[in-house]
Amino acid sequence: MSLPYLLVEQAVRAGLLEDLGRAGDITSDAVIPAGSRANCALVARDAGVVAGLDFARTSFALIDPSIDFTVFMPDGTRLSPGDVIATISGPARGILSGERVALNFLGHLSGIATATRGIADAIAHTKARITCTRKTMPGLRFAQKYAVRCGGGSNHRYGLDDAILIKDNHVAIAGGIRQVLQAAKKAAGHLVKIELEVDSMAQLAEALDEGVDVILLDNFNTDMLREAVAMIGGRAICEASGRISPATAPAIAETGVDYLSAGWLTHTVRVLDIGLDFNS
Amino acid sequence: MSLPYLLVEQAVRAGLLEDLGRAGDITSDAVIPAGSRANCALVARDAGVVAGLDFARTSFALIDPSIDFTVFMPDGTRLSPGDVIATISGPARGILSGERVALNFLGHLSGIATATRGIADAIAHTKARITCTRKTMPGLRFAQKYAVRCGGGSNHRYGLDDAILIKDNHVAIAGGIRQVLQAAKKAAGHLVKIELEVDSMAQLAEALDEGVDVILLDNFNTDMLREAVAMIGGRAICEASGRISPATAPAIAETGVDYLSAGWLTHTVRVLDIGLDFNS
Amino acid sequence: MSLPYLLVEQAVRAGLLEDLGRAGDITSDAVIPAGSRANCALVARDAGVVAGLDFARTSFALIDPSIDFTVFMPDGTRLSPGDVIATISGPARGILSGERVALNFLGHLSGIATATRGIADAIAHTKARITCTRKTMPGLRFAQKYAVRCGGGSNHRYGLDDAILIKDNHVAIAGGIRQVLQAAKKAAGHLVKIELEVDSMAQLAEALDEGVDVILLDNFNTDMLREAVAMIGGRAICEASGRISPATAPAIAETGVDYLSAGWLTHTVRVLDIGLDFNS
Amino acid sequence: MSLPYLLVEQAVRAGLLEDLGRAGDITSDAVIPAGSRANCALVARDAGVVAGLDFARTSFALIDPSIDFTVFMPDGTRLSPGDVIATISGPARGILSGERVALNFLGHLSGIATATRGIADAIAHTKARITCTRKTMPGLRFAQKYAVRCGGGSNHRYGLDDAILIKDNHVAIAGGIRQVLQAAKKAAGHLVKIELEVDSMAQLAEALDEGVDVILLDNFNTDMLREAVAMIGGRAICEASGRISPATAPAIAETGVDYLSAGWLTHTVRVLDIGLDFNS
Amino acid sequence: MSLPYLLVEQAVRAGLLEDLGRAGDITSDAVIPAGSRANCALVARDAGVVAGLDFARTSFALIDPSIDFTVFMPDGTRLSPGDVIATISGPARGILSGERVALNFLGHLSGIATATRGIADAIAHTKARITCTRKTMPGLRFAQKYAVRCGGGSNHRYGLDDAILIKDNHVAIAGGIRQVLQAAKKAAGHLVKIELEVDSMAQLAEALDEGVDVILLDNFNTDMLREAVAMIGGRAICEASGRISPATAPAIAETGVDYLSAGWLTHTVRVLDIGLDFNS
Amino acid sequence: MSLPYLLVEQAVRAGLLEDLGRAGDITSDAVIPAGSRANCALVARDAGVVAGLDFARTSFALIDPSIDFTVFMPDGTRLSPGDVIATISGPARGILSGERVALNFLGHLSGIATATRGIADAIAHTKARITCTRKTMPGLRFAQKYAVRCGGGSNHRYGLDDAILIKDNHVAIAGGIRQVLQAAKKAAGHLVKIELEVDSMAQLAEALDEGVDVILLDNFNTDMLREAVAMIGGRAICEASGRISPATAPAIAETGVDYLSAGWLTHTVRVLDIGLDFNS
Repeated sequence: MSLPYLLVEQAVRAGLLEDLGRAGDITSDAVIPAGSRANCALVARDAGVVAGLDFARTSFALIDPSIDFTVFMPDGTRLSPGDVIATISGPARGILSGERVALNFLGHLSGIATATRGIADAIAHTKARITCTRKTMPGLRFAQKYAVRCGGGSNHRYGLDDAILIKDNHVAIAGGIRQVLQAAKKAAGHLVKIELEVDSMAQLAEALDEGVDVILLDNFNTDMLREAVAMIGGRAICEASGRISPATAPAIAETGVDYLSAGWLTHTVRVLDIGLDFNS
Repeated sequence: MSLPYLLVEQAVRAGLLEDLGRAGDITSDAVIPAGSRANCALVARDAGVVAGLDFARTSFALIDPSIDFTVFMPDGTRLSPGDVIATISGPARGILSGERVALNFLGHLSGIATATRGIADAIAHTKARITCTRKTMPGLRFAQKYAVRCGGGSNHRYGLDDAILIKDNHVAIAGGIRQVLQAAKKAAGHLVKIELEVDSMAQLAEALDEGVDVILLDNFNTDMLREAVAMIGGRAICEASGRISPATAPAIAETGVDYLSAGWLTHTVRVLDIGLDFNS
Repeated sequence: MSLPYLLVEQAVRAGLLEDLGRAGDITSDAVIPAGSRANCALVARDAGVVAGLDFARTSFALIDPSIDFTVFMPDGTRLSPGDVIATISGPARGILSGERVALNFLGHLSGIATATRGIADAIAHTKARITCTRKTMPGLRFAQKYAVRCGGGSNHRYGLDDAILIKDNHVAIAGGIRQVLQAAKKAAGHLVKIELEVDSMAQLAEALDEGVDVILLDNFNTDMLREAVAMIGGRAICEASGRISPATAPAIAETGVDYLSAGWLTHTVRVLDIGLDFNS
Repeated sequence: MSLPYLLVEQAVRAGLLEDLGRAGDITSDAVIPAGSRANCALVARDAGVVAGLDFARTSFALIDPSIDFTVFMPDGTRLSPGDVIATISGPARGILSGERVALNFLGHLSGIATATRGIADAIAHTKARITCTRKTMPGLRFAQKYAVRCGGGSNHRYGLDDAILIKDNHVAIAGGIRQVLQAAKKAAGHLVKIELEVDSMAQLAEALDEGVDVILLDNFNTDMLREAVAMIGGRAICEASGRISPATAPAIAETGVDYLSAGWLTHTVRVLDIGLDFNS
Repeated sequence: MSLPYLLVEQAVRAGLLEDLGRAGDITSDAVIPAGSRANCALVARDAGVVAGLDFARTSFALIDPSIDFTVFMPDGTRLSPGDVIATISGPARGILSGERVALNFLGHLSGIATATRGIADAIAHTKARITCTRKTMPGLRFAQKYAVRCGGGSNHRYGLDDAILIKDNHVAIAGGIRQVLQAAKKAAGHLVKIELEVDSMAQLAEALDEGVDVILLDNFNTDMLREAVAMIGGRAICEASGRISPATAPAIAETGVDYLSAGWLTHTVRVLDIGLDFNS
Repeated sequence: MSLPYLLVEQAVRAGLLEDLGRAGDITSDAVIPAGSRANCALVARDAGVVAGLDFARTSFALIDPSIDFTVFMPDGTRLSPGDVIATISGPARGILSGERVALNFLGHLSGIATATRGIADAIAHTKARITCTRKTMPGLRFAQKYAVRCGGGSNHRYGLDDAILIKDNHVAIAGGIRQVLQAAKKAAGHLVKIELEVDSMAQLAEALDEGVDVILLDNFNTDMLREAVAMIGGRAICEASGRISPATAPAIAETGVDYLSAGWLTHTVRVLDIGLDFNS
């Protein structure tokens, strides 16, 4: 589980500049003596899965490279309340100035990893995997998708350009399953997969007849999913979406679909409560 | 309720470039005929408060300036399921290419506005107001804070640089209430307010004695809040934080505090379900 | 054939800022009277295929939005010497200031389209298609890949992140065909294709046994290619690379491979001679 | 021969971000064990002149600062096939991730240096020097011009702003040699040179009479060049352009001109084949 | 006195890129031998207060990180002619290349600190403080405001967004003191101060009646200032602006106002003469 | 007198983003009714020369494109107190929000133009011209140099890269006049001029013997300047620097030098007082 440092640095730099504004941390500058040092610990206050430690480390390093950041529980680790994820020591001003941006990344990304792990665990007895969507926070997609992987999930396409996904509106405007699939195949390079959303068994049959890499079944109930999986018969990867939760996921996964996709993994994120304890 | 276009454009441009990647919308390019046009409506699927229409408008305009975007329910309007918020018409390819980024902004920001409105309504019978924190999505703070205003909330400071907020860790490191307040007053310009977090009635008394603009009472129960409000006696603005929800907010507000601040308004956001309906 | 305007604008803006430097076009400012107008034509001086007209249009528009740019031969059109591709009219200063950047984009991208078309024509009697690589000019990849499409070619992956391509060095370091393919499948999302470069029939057999989307055969002669195609038997897409030229391409394509990939399409580009004629 | 690091870093960063996309090197992440190390050599596969080693070094350093990069043949060195230009050692993932961008810069810039050196050698028996133009790859001009210097060439102006170059179209629009030269002299600062393109001996005579720093003779044959050089008689620097090749350059240079300028040095570049060999 | 490194680096990088242009320091590259080293001293040529050493240090460090920069007189120190502020040693080329940008920052910011100190000293016998405005050099505001602090001054708001300042034009357009103050209070968050410019004692009375944090008295003479201070009676902070100079400041400050604000501190700056002596 | 719009826009955008911060103009948003319109005039309050109207126009246009900006006195015009330079009309909020950035550019650049005009007028009876240096505000050099031209001045080099200027330190480190000139000539392209600073008549003689384009005489008194001009005898352009003021310039110019250069034109700028009058 790793991300190129260039991407992490770019995002953290933007976050810090937004927070530092035009005058920097005027509180710490005013009240913390210049030479003060602090020893701190990143501590889980709730159970979950950690993600985003490179973002946290970089939040401090870009403020003051002399701050030490030692990780005990790397990204992807399951956390219990009280677990010490990492320790941070160095100039107190720098730690206080970087704290909020570090925690904003860490809490949000760990929240995504935790939610993803919840579904992944719920369907671990099946072959199905949980995957995310493009319903992400603008500017943070690469980080959110990384967090999904930290939680045991798989990634859907990263943008409009790295895979073809033909949705119901495309079909409606363009005029028919066969027609859109043929147009898509003609345009797609040989390293681009094609996915098609179908609304009915009739559409599914037409798609399979024409051939497609992945079928998206949106809001099918489990009976319909089972029927669709049978009709597909391994000729395409099968992705189910709609109403995925820890409670519903097992039954959906047991229908035999290959992937469950859930937009809320990245669009409705519950922060994981991670705190920075001073003088631990 | 408005935001400078320069800020909106910068954020939307980043969101679009992230989604378009290096090849653009290869699906719509492949399957939608070049001349196709579409008429669409942004429709509320759930009740809430809308926020972010400038972001949505700009998502389409930066893709294709010929797309028409007409607003019926401006930012801050309360929505019922089925309400048509805006209509969009123009080249189908452009609408399909901009749809996801537009909805990502709109759903997230409306989610914030809706949650804020929930608290604002719950405390409307008091003088207290709901306010946000710096627990935001990196890079999107200005947009999230705007959404809080759309929901009837008030904004806390925007960054480390526009107000002094002395938290418990500052006090612990720097050595005492009186000392930090004096240092803060010496450093602060005459247009910068000073807020202090206190842990106890003793600290509060010391702070009031020294003088401060705003007092932050974190995780005080309602009895303690009432006592603190009485002790403050109008000599400082009083902000309560911790465990704010639609259920708890009324009792907290009724203690006489001036502001309730809640990090979850921006760090744990439930997307508001807004859809883009294509009308053939 | 189209590219998002946001991407085009970003590249053209960088090219113009590089050329304008800190003082702009000091020659035209000095010698061309402020009110002078010019009517010009973009004229092919050689045979080829045009690509990059949006870049040319934008080069003038960002200098002076009042410059008219009318296209007669859109991207992808075959050109004969003397063909008028577009006409440009407006303030002479602006046209002269934008000319070089416009022609730099247009000549380079048309050169790529022309070379690609040369191979595409040579293999038109087969099912094979010509495709490019990641051997591109840093910063201009998206534009070069677009030019390949304008020339009738297909695109390989756009970067390190949108498909898995396991090369000989990966296999050597990681320890074996089966091992790398299994690791790749475990990591890949369901919309990511996996390609493997093989050096021998033995490796090919092992790969097919394990299963893979695309096989890359580098520097195989036509006999070996034919043998490999037979062994693959439709179980994977087959891409041949190495020594692709208009002369060699037909024989290679006739072996039954699906794709011919050539780095020189984008790394060793012969500019297409397109001139800007001023008509007094 | 050196370039400011700030310029190199900016260009390499853009190249890497383009290649890493939103997910980074998914192949190496998937198949190369985290701890693997590699020792590699940059090896010339063809004869030429090397240029761009700072770009290559930075391509690896920005991915992983722990990668060692030791140069044996610095920029400007003549290469024979098999020469080891530099060695690279460190984490295998980082080396594999940075390889393509490093080689894209190195092959392209070395190709320019090699072509330039070919002309420089061909005219070494004369006083003439070879120089480049503004026909460059947008965004890469500073790097291409540096490569020309590495090949023994000289640089023409860098942009529209650092010298005045009055071309035939300027003269045609503005109305006459004398007029444009006087306007140019009036506008030019005392550290800006003025060059004029002339079409005929009559224009040349008029220009010399008025006075100018540099004369550009485009597509003059050698007899005409000799005649022009005689007429100039040292009163201006004399630059010849058009149809410059290793074969034609000696005769052109022997006419006594001071500079030969060739657009193809930077617009039609043949990559120099440099490979990265992994040594187990 | 400190500034976040991220802000300093961003500004210095822009300054260096502007100065290095597309070819870097062609003079030092041409005439200074590659191995030359230099020992230099930043020396005050005039009396004043130093500000901007982090900008100077970074100007050299971004050119060549091996340049040593040792500070003897940190920002805020009073300088006498001949004082050695810092010593710089390292590769001569790098020092010569970074010299101009370093001195441009240092001379300008020290000029601001010096002027500010002049006023601060002149009013040191009063409780009043000197403060700056938003009349700054675009892009350099954060640096200029920092220099004001180095000179013993205080900062006014940093932008349009961190405090409310209602000027005469706002009142004229919006219709009255009471109305604008009520609107401002309704909009302002609890950490935002409100300042109002008044033209007359009548307006002042109305403002005090309504309540406001800060009163701005522009171009009031000392008698009027004294009268206003008396009327305010501690109910608001009192800021005087207009015609502030070392000569006029004492009398203005002695009227009892809290702040003197002067636009010329940042808009009409006399550079402090600081030189870089080689081989000291 | 004109500047490329791309450069102007980039600088103004940076200035506006700095001023708008993260929340925009909270004062105007709060107190100015949404529909209010205003008619304003840019009025000279002092005598001088105007420069920077494109920056002012763009400051308003980027805030609100519907704001009308009509120029009566274009850049370079001499102003008398009370002159109406331009009128501005449109939404009051947008005008108020853009006012400060517009005036910051306009006052500063007009200040430079005015000072330059002062010297230019003082030496108008000689052939000498006034020119600026690289002692500029970081990030604003292109704008400041443009303002010098608006005031009738000429521009020195724009950066380290567009001309060679060998200063005393270069000579001291590199070892001698002849040596540095030969190195410079060898490195310089044919469109790059070479200037040399000399300290004595002996150095001057050596430089003239070796040949150089421009001689810089720093802090020579008028007798020495006259002697130097005589010795140069037209063999090089002659630039005098040091202690240039309206009072001293005539005598210096009358020595026969070609250029007077003055750093204070751009490093110690007195703002020109230009105001924005509402409802004029």
